[in-house]
Amino acid sequence: MAALPPPVPPTAVGIDLGGTKIAAALVGADGTITSRASLPTPAAAGPEAVLDAIAELAAPLLAAAAAAGAPALGVGIGAAGVIDPATATVLSATDHLPGWAGTDLRAGLGARLEIHPSAVHAVNDVHAHALGEGWLGAAAGASSVLLAAFGTGIGGSLLLDGVPLFGARQVGGHLGHVPSVEATGLRCPCGGTGHLEAIASGPSLHALYLRSGGDPAVPDARAVFDRAAAGDLLALSAIDTAATAAGRALGGLANALDPTAVIVSGGLADAGDSWWAPLRAAFAAELIGPLSSLVPQPAALGADAALAGAASLLLAPAASTHLPAFKEPTPCC
Amino acid sequence: MAALPPPVPPTAVGIDLGGTKIAAALVGADGTITSRASLPTPAAAGPEAVLDAIAELAAPLLAAAAAAGAPALGVGIGAAGVIDPATATVLSATDHLPGWAGTDLRAGLGARLEIHPSAVHAVNDVHAHALGEGWLGAAAGASSVLLAAFGTGIGGSLLLDGVPLFGARQVGGHLGHVPSVEATGLRCPCGGTGHLEAIASGPSLHALYLRSGGDPAVPDARAVFDRAAAGDLLALSAIDTAATAAGRALGGLANALDPTAVIVSGGLADAGDSWWAPLRAAFAAELIGPLSSLVPQPAALGADAALAGAASLLLAPAASTHLPAFKEPTPCC
Repeated sequence: MAALPPPVPPTAVGIDLGGTKIAAALVGADGTITSRASLPTPAAAGPEAVLDAIAELAAPLLAAAAAAGAPALGVGIGAAGVIDPATATVLSATDHLPGWAGTDLRAGLGARLEIHPSAVHAVNDVHAHALGEGWLGAAAGASSVLLAAFGTGIGGSLLLDGVPLFGARQVGGHLGHVPSVEATGLRCPCGGTGHLEAIASGPSLHALYLRSGGDPAVPDARAVFDRAAAGDLLALSAIDTAATAAGRALGGLANALDPTAVIVSGGLADAGDSWWAPLRAAFAAELIGPLSSLVPQPAALGADAALAGAASLLLAPAASTHLPAFKEPTPCC
Repeated sequence: MAALPPPVPPTAVGIDLGGTKIAAALVGADGTITSRASLPTPAAAGPEAVLDAIAELAAPLLAAAAAAGAPALGVGIGAAGVIDPATATVLSATDHLPGWAGTDLRAGLGARLEIHPSAVHAVNDVHAHALGEGWLGAAAGASSVLLAAFGTGIGGSLLLDGVPLFGARQVGGHLGHVPSVEATGLRCPCGGTGHLEAIASGPSLHALYLRSGGDPAVPDARAVFDRAAAGDLLALSAIDTAATAAGRALGGLANALDPTAVIVSGGLADAGDSWWAPLRAAFAAELIGPLSSLVPQPAALGADAALAGAASLLLAPAASTHLPAFKEPTPCC
């Protein structure tokens, strides 16, 4: 009797959907990315066009997997907006994706890709990012992970045994809206006052630099970092304040949640030691005794984290086992 | 053939071990307390004496349960200190219980009560409190609960699907050590600076009253509330500041964690509207849109919460199923 062929490890398509770009990858069971593609997000053309673009990226990857004899288990999506992971429906979204709220990713992609709707999973992009880092990246093997992303906004995700804390209203991980001493009196994009995002996001850091008398020709946070590298003391001071606020808030959250690992990502985390040094110092100063050896670490996978994390919704045992059971979406908006 | 007797619902003994008092109760499967007793904690006499006292309380309750034909499944303990729930071992403790660190509750009570060590479970007292409120009290039925207790210190617990977030170092729930604007520059008992506990605990509220020029004859936080009730404006102001700090911090944590319910307990929570009104206002001001209907609620069970919660370690399906698997303790201290 001929021996059976060895079992083929599964694959999945991971999608990272942002306001300006959609990235897609074919991800192996071990997280290896074997093929990738991307398209600009047709945000202004509305959600049907966005779904079309996702399908345009995913279809050839699904076909390639099948042709290689390692069929994909489905499509995992890390999407901008507030996502209900039980239904893969968009609960709310920002102006970057007009009309996106209410989009049913399962129905929309199941039909376009001719796959069963239950083979489509979605979480928000920061959860996808954390899932990737927790699976294969800076927090691989950690039983709990607090990830914070500092960029245009501030996002986050708490992974517990490999599963994001989605929260009762699917907004768990909104770390930008904790109180910050450094943000006292400052308006937050959420409408509140004094939140971390009002001082520690990229735009807030830039605004702080300008408020403190910085060169009005400096157009954004990236340019503030350039100025700091050139010795601009006001730029260094603004970075120090923003990063101190970030470190202090993360240290307090670590005290409350006692995670195994703290991972910091986002555009600001790529900016170098002028930001990391005050963040680490403020974080350390905040910690209670039992956490004293905890040090925030930079994310390790870059943009691949969200692709791997999205695919992990189908591939990684913890995430897929603990995802809420499939249920029919209800109109939300 | 005679009909079998109907199945008897199980019971368990719940223990609430504090620095001054040990309370014990026989708890039914529905949370009903059918019998209770208490003793002063023989703290100064050392951990063996404390174990003796717990056994002295628990033994007659176990016997009563057996005599009533509803044998207890075991003994659940909510204990002061940092507890490893997987081993029921005390990892660290405060000066209120000298020598308590390192105590193995399973071995100590198993031997004294002649029950199998695996029938002894333990968590810290604030987790026990939250388990009780989440099972039967103010958060009954909520899938996630953030509980904060404001008293001599500030403690907390995040219950997810009925299970406390113990944390990687068993210190999850230390909500008193998040940054607080109102505590800027103030020393915290943990050794840090600017933490919530430095402004919003009972002793901190009292210290604030004295610092702001209050009557030096006022001996403690309780007396500050009495003064406030009598119209002392400095007392009202100190209460307002401490409660505002509490509400702001809890609102920020709610934004980050998106719990179904927020429960507030502890001695200060019993002090009335002079404390609750600013807490609620500050909490509401902090919330992001999706959480806007979330209102912190007072705990409902009083001291019975910890007794029921401790017993729930054996009786309630979620807590008992999700407790870490029994493992032999390793020396910790």
